[in-house]
Amino acid sequence: MNRTLTLNYRVEPFSEDHTGRLRWGILGNWLLRTASLHAAAHGFGYDDMIRTGHAWVLSRLVVEMERMPRTGEAFSLSTWVPSFYRQFTDRLFSLTAPDGTPLGHARSIWALIDTTTRRPLNLDTLADGGFSAALEPRDVPIAPAGRFRIDAAQPERTLTAGYCDLDINGHVNSVRYIEMALDALGSDRYDTQRPQRIEAAYAAEARMGDAFRLYRQDFSADESAVEIRRADDERSLFKALVRFAPL
Amino acid sequence: MNRTLTLNYRVEPFSEDHTGRLRWGILGNWLLRTASLHAAAHGFGYDDMIRTGHAWVLSRLVVEMERMPRTGEAFSLSTWVPSFYRQFTDRLFSLTAPDGTPLGHARSIWALIDTTTRRPLNLDTLADGGFSAALEPRDVPIAPAGRFRIDAAQPERTLTAGYCDLDINGHVNSVRYIEMALDALGSDRYDTQRPQRIEAAYAAEARMGDAFRLYRQDFSADESAVEIRRADDERSLFKALVRFAPL
Repeated sequence: MNRTLTLNYRVEPFSEDHTGRLRWGILGNWLLRTASLHAAAHGFGYDDMIRTGHAWVLSRLVVEMERMPRTGEAFSLSTWVPSFYRQFTDRLFSLTAPDGTPLGHARSIWALIDTTTRRPLNLDTLADGGFSAALEPRDVPIAPAGRFRIDAAQPERTLTAGYCDLDINGHVNSVRYIEMALDALGSDRYDTQRPQRIEAAYAAEARMGDAFRLYRQDFSADESAVEIRRADDERSLFKALVRFAPL
Repeated sequence: MNRTLTLNYRVEPFSEDHTGRLRWGILGNWLLRTASLHAAAHGFGYDDMIRTGHAWVLSRLVVEMERMPRTGEAFSLSTWVPSFYRQFTDRLFSLTAPDGTPLGHARSIWALIDTTTRRPLNLDTLADGGFSAALEPRDVPIAPAGRFRIDAAQPERTLTAGYCDLDINGHVNSVRYIEMALDALGSDRYDTQRPQRIEAAYAAEARMGDAFRLYRQDFSADESAVEIRRADDERSLFKALVRFAPL
């Protein structure tokens, strides 16, 4: 079986941002969708894992878009798993225009957890679970996630996680965190800048009704970060580092 | 040409709510997408209208779902335009399971505005614009939007419209208003209830950075309403009446 899954997408009406380019939230959902279909095709999808009391949890996501496609533009989205190690699996993505021009790339890190203990498993012990057969050792030309710290003492804004933010597990879904972070980085800047690279780190799960504090830190005119903490215990749930490019 | 456009959809991973059923936000986007493709097929789509300095603006949307499909379920979504009158066009929708069982219906009212004056046009004067040829006088079995008033004096919550809330015109997109309203109707209720009917009324356009006040009113244990007003001038932007059914 082909170890890389490639699906075709098209930017359609109502999926664009105010500049007429694909919204990050929709791109994020398409990345996760493609990942899910690839995993299912190789026998370690959501359903396969749930049956054995396991679930994939997104730990890191880095997306870098050289160009975000516009309304009507088609592109192909490919995903493959280059490696797994101990408690984590790497999953890579590439987005390509019909003429072969790269639009962008993404790298993600996933943990397989036990759905009862919520603890991660050692994937080496599951190596016969079909993972090794699916490995495609090919990299993408974007830097891995780096380290960054947010020292802001005052929250930029507060939010309450709502019904429409949830995923099927009842947790705030991975893509909504990214949207919350982008929204917290101001308004006017989006008239002249676009997010070009987003590093997202998922630390803990949140549920409907949880109150969030969003802390913002600007490292430069084109690099900002957001940390989302749960209000009641200040526990860090999510961090994002966003690099902007001129529109 | 067929006056009804029918497209097939499937509930996929990452498109479900915490009960495993299609998220309202994604259903909303699919309704608008299907409407847009139908209009384009009949020569009065977004591009056709923009070329003549016009744009469709959603004024009312009523969606009633007897059953919200689950992960993996396929359904067909049909849309047609039964009538237009003066400044408004009706557009209806029906959602049907593969076995022919109706899943739900929707009715919407659209105005065609002049993109420079932002004022609505009299559609009778555009009757030769291909509208009449596309009319399909067939109704759906759900009640039209009713009237309701929200007297709440204290906002349930406040929000700031962000980058990820925008549509291609730079306004907060129609579906996000509905998500904001559903999120403002509490958390615990969604463990036992699901939105079964949503009436949405769009009054004015909002932009990125606008501060919103969300006013909530409960009419009964299974009927609540939300009004979203712009904080600076208390102008009413959006109202929704939501009827809940047991899960």
